[in-house]
Amino acid sequence: MLDFQFSCPTKIIFGKDSEQQLGSQISLYGRKVLLHYGGGSVIKSGLHQRVINTLAEAGVEVVELSGVQPNPRLSLVREGVALCKEHNIDSILAVGGGSVIDSAKAIAAGTCYEGDVWDFFTGKAQLSEALPLGVILTIPAAGSESSSGTVITNEDGWLKRSMGGEILRPKFAIMNPELTYSLPPYQTACGIVDMMAHILERYFSNTESVELTDRLSEAALTTIINNAPKVLDNAEDYDARAEIMWAGTLAHNGLMGTGREGDWASHQIEHELSGIYDIAHGAGLAIVFPAWMKFCQRVNPSKLAQFAERVMGVPADFDGDIALEGIARFETFLRSLAMPVRLSEADIDNRHFEEMATKCIGDGLLGNYVQLSRFDIVEIYKLAQ
Amino acid sequence: MLDFQFSCPTKIIFGKDSEQQLGSQISLYGRKVLLHYGGGSVIKSGLHQRVINTLAEAGVEVVELSGVQPNPRLSLVREGVALCKEHNIDSILAVGGGSVIDSAKAIAAGTCYEGDVWDFFTGKAQLSEALPLGVILTIPAAGSESSSGTVITNEDGWLKRSMGGEILRPKFAIMNPELTYSLPPYQTACGIVDMMAHILERYFSNTESVELTDRLSEAALTTIINNAPKVLDNAEDYDARAEIMWAGTLAHNGLMGTGREGDWASHQIEHELSGIYDIAHGAGLAIVFPAWMKFCQRVNPSKLAQFAERVMGVPADFDGDIALEGIARFETFLRSLAMPVRLSEADIDNRHFEEMATKCIGDGLLGNYVQLSRFDIVEIYKLAQ
Repeated sequence: MLDFQFSCPTKIIFGKDSEQQLGSQISLYGRKVLLHYGGGSVIKSGLHQRVINTLAEAGVEVVELSGVQPNPRLSLVREGVALCKEHNIDSILAVGGGSVIDSAKAIAAGTCYEGDVWDFFTGKAQLSEALPLGVILTIPAAGSESSSGTVITNEDGWLKRSMGGEILRPKFAIMNPELTYSLPPYQTACGIVDMMAHILERYFSNTESVELTDRLSEAALTTIINNAPKVLDNAEDYDARAEIMWAGTLAHNGLMGTGREGDWASHQIEHELSGIYDIAHGAGLAIVFPAWMKFCQRVNPSKLAQFAERVMGVPADFDGDIALEGIARFETFLRSLAMPVRLSEADIDNRHFEEMATKCIGDGLLGNYVQLSRFDIVEIYKLAQ
Repeated sequence: MLDFQFSCPTKIIFGKDSEQQLGSQISLYGRKVLLHYGGGSVIKSGLHQRVINTLAEAGVEVVELSGVQPNPRLSLVREGVALCKEHNIDSILAVGGGSVIDSAKAIAAGTCYEGDVWDFFTGKAQLSEALPLGVILTIPAAGSESSSGTVITNEDGWLKRSMGGEILRPKFAIMNPELTYSLPPYQTACGIVDMMAHILERYFSNTESVELTDRLSEAALTTIINNAPKVLDNAEDYDARAEIMWAGTLAHNGLMGTGREGDWASHQIEHELSGIYDIAHGAGLAIVFPAWMKFCQRVNPSKLAQFAERVMGVPADFDGDIALEGIARFETFLRSLAMPVRLSEADIDNRHFEEMATKCIGDGLLGNYVQLSRFDIVEIYKLAQ
C-alpha cells in the first residue's frame, strides 16, 4: 500500500426531500448567488423554477448564467467570472451534471483571481482561493459533485485541460435520485460507463496489498452492474436510481484510489477520440476500455483475472482464460446498455489512429498498469475496430 | 434506501511518513497546543519525544495533559478544559487511541463553553463550537479519528454518556501503521472486534435496497477477516496493519451507514456488561455479538444468511441453516483472535442478567433489526453463557 491522503468534506444531502435543504445550505455562504446551469431540461422539468422559488424564500439574490454545453467552454467560464465580479457574488449554485459543475468550479476559481482564469489550466497560476460552490446534481456520471477537479475546453485551439485543488470541492451536493428519472436511456448509460471507468482507472494498478481499496471498488462495480438494467428497464425505479447515483459519487471522490497508483490511460485514449469525433465521453469509454483490457491481458493479466472473478462472476475453475472471459462478459454488459463497444458501431474508421496515438503521448509512455507507447495505442485502437 | 447526509472532512494522512506532516498541519490551527495522551506506551515507544521535537521545530508552544484511561473520565476532561482556558490554547493534539481522542473531543467542546462540559452529555447544552483537534492514531479500533462523537464516563455515578456533532470531527488524522506494531495481540484483537462491530451494527438493518452500502460493508468485513490473522502472526506486517487501520476508520466515519437505519443493540448490551465487570469493550462485543445473532436468527434470519454467504463464505447450497453456520464461523474467527466468545470464558456468571437487562432498556425496546425487550436481553445473556 502506498501512502495517501484522503478527505471528502462535501456535505452530501441525499434523498427524496433533499432539495428542501437548499435554502438553509446556500444561506451559509452569503446572500448573492450565481445560478449556473445548462438549459432545456432543467427548465422543462420545473426544477429551475423550484430553485428560483426556494432561493427567493431564503432571501438570496440571484444572478443567472445558463448555456453550459457538454465539454464546458472557457468563453462561458470567463463570462461567469465577469458576472461574479460585477455583482459581488458570494457563492455559486450549479444545477446539472458534470459539465455544469466543472464550469462552476472554474468560475469559482476565476472570480478570486485577478488574471485570466485559463492561467490555472496552463499552470501559470496556482489555485489558492475560490468562491464556495453548492450543487444540485441531475446527472450521475462525472462525480464532479464531490471531486476536487474540473475539465474545461478552450475554444481557441480546442484545448481540453484540467485543474484541481481541495478548495474546489463543492461545499454541499444535493442529490435527489428522482431528479434523474427524466434522463434518457442513452445518457443514463453513458453516465454508468463513466462512473465505472472512474473506478476501473484506479482499480487496474500494480500497487500490491490494497485489499480494502480493491474490495470497495469491486463492491461499487458490482452494485452498478446489478442496478444498471433496473434503471434502463424502469426509469423511475427510485432505489436503483439511488444506488447508481451514490455509486457515481463514491467512484470519483478519491476513496477508490486510496493507497495505490491509478492508470488513466483509457481516459486519455478516449479524449483523443472525442477530440476528433462527435462521440459522448461514456460511449467512447465503452469502446476504448474493452480494447485496452484486451491489450493489457497479453502482458499483465493478473488484475484482469481478479476483475473477471470478483466483478464479472467468472468461476475460478473456468475452462479457459479467465481474464478474457471477464472482458467478454464486460462487453456483453456494455452492449446490454446499448453502448457501442466497437469504433465501427460509432462510424469511426482507422484513418486517424496514428494521429490520435501521437497526439495522445508522442514519444512518451502512457498509463501505469501497462505503460503504453504510441504504437501500443494504435494497437488498442485496432483492437477496438 | 433512506435519505441520508454524509461528509467526512477529516484530512486522513496515511502512511509510513505521515508524522512528518504534523508540524505543517498543526500550524494551520494556531501556535499553542494541548498535547493530550495516555501514558506509558506513547512515552516508551519514543513517539512522545518525536512529537515534542516536531512541535518545537514548528514553533508551536505545548501544554501537556497525560493520564487518559480506557473509558475516559470526566475529571480529566474538566482538567483539560481548565488548562486550555488558562493557557489560551488554540488547538488540541490527541496522540493515542479512541479513549484519548474522545477525551480530547470533550475538552475541545468544553473549552468553548462557559458552563460545565458535562452539560453537553446530559443535553443541557447544545454543541456549537469546539477547538480544532488533530490526531496521531496509535490504536485502530474506535474510529474516533474521523467520527463526530465522543463517549465520556462521569465518575460521579459511573455514568457513561455520549455526545456528538460535526464540529467534533478531527481536522486531521495522522495514521502510520508502523505505530501499531507495538500493540499487544490482545489489544490488537479487541480493536479488530470493535471495528467489525461498528460495521455490523449498521449492517444488520431492515432497510431494504441498500446494495452499495451492504457491499461496501462486506468489503470491509472481509478485508478485516483476511488481515487479522496476518497481524496476529506478524505484528510488523506493514500491509496487513495498514488494511486493518484504514478499515477501522471507514468502519465508523458514517460511510457504512449511508441510507439505512442501524441497530446498536449489541453495543448497549455490552455496555451494561463492562459497566459491572472489568472487561475490555472489544472482548465484551466478541461475547455479545454471536449471542445477539443467535437470538435474531430465530426471528429475522435473512440478513444473517446474507452475512453468512457473503462474509463468512458459507456456500449458497450449504446443507443446513446458512445463518447458523455463518454465526458458527464468525465465532470460530473470534476464537482464532483469542477473544472470549462466552461469558464463562470471561468468568462472568448469571447473577446480574436481570439487573443488566433492566438497566439496559427498562420496559422499553432496544435495537432495530429485532426490537428487544428486557426479557429478550436476558435471553441473549443466557445464549452467551
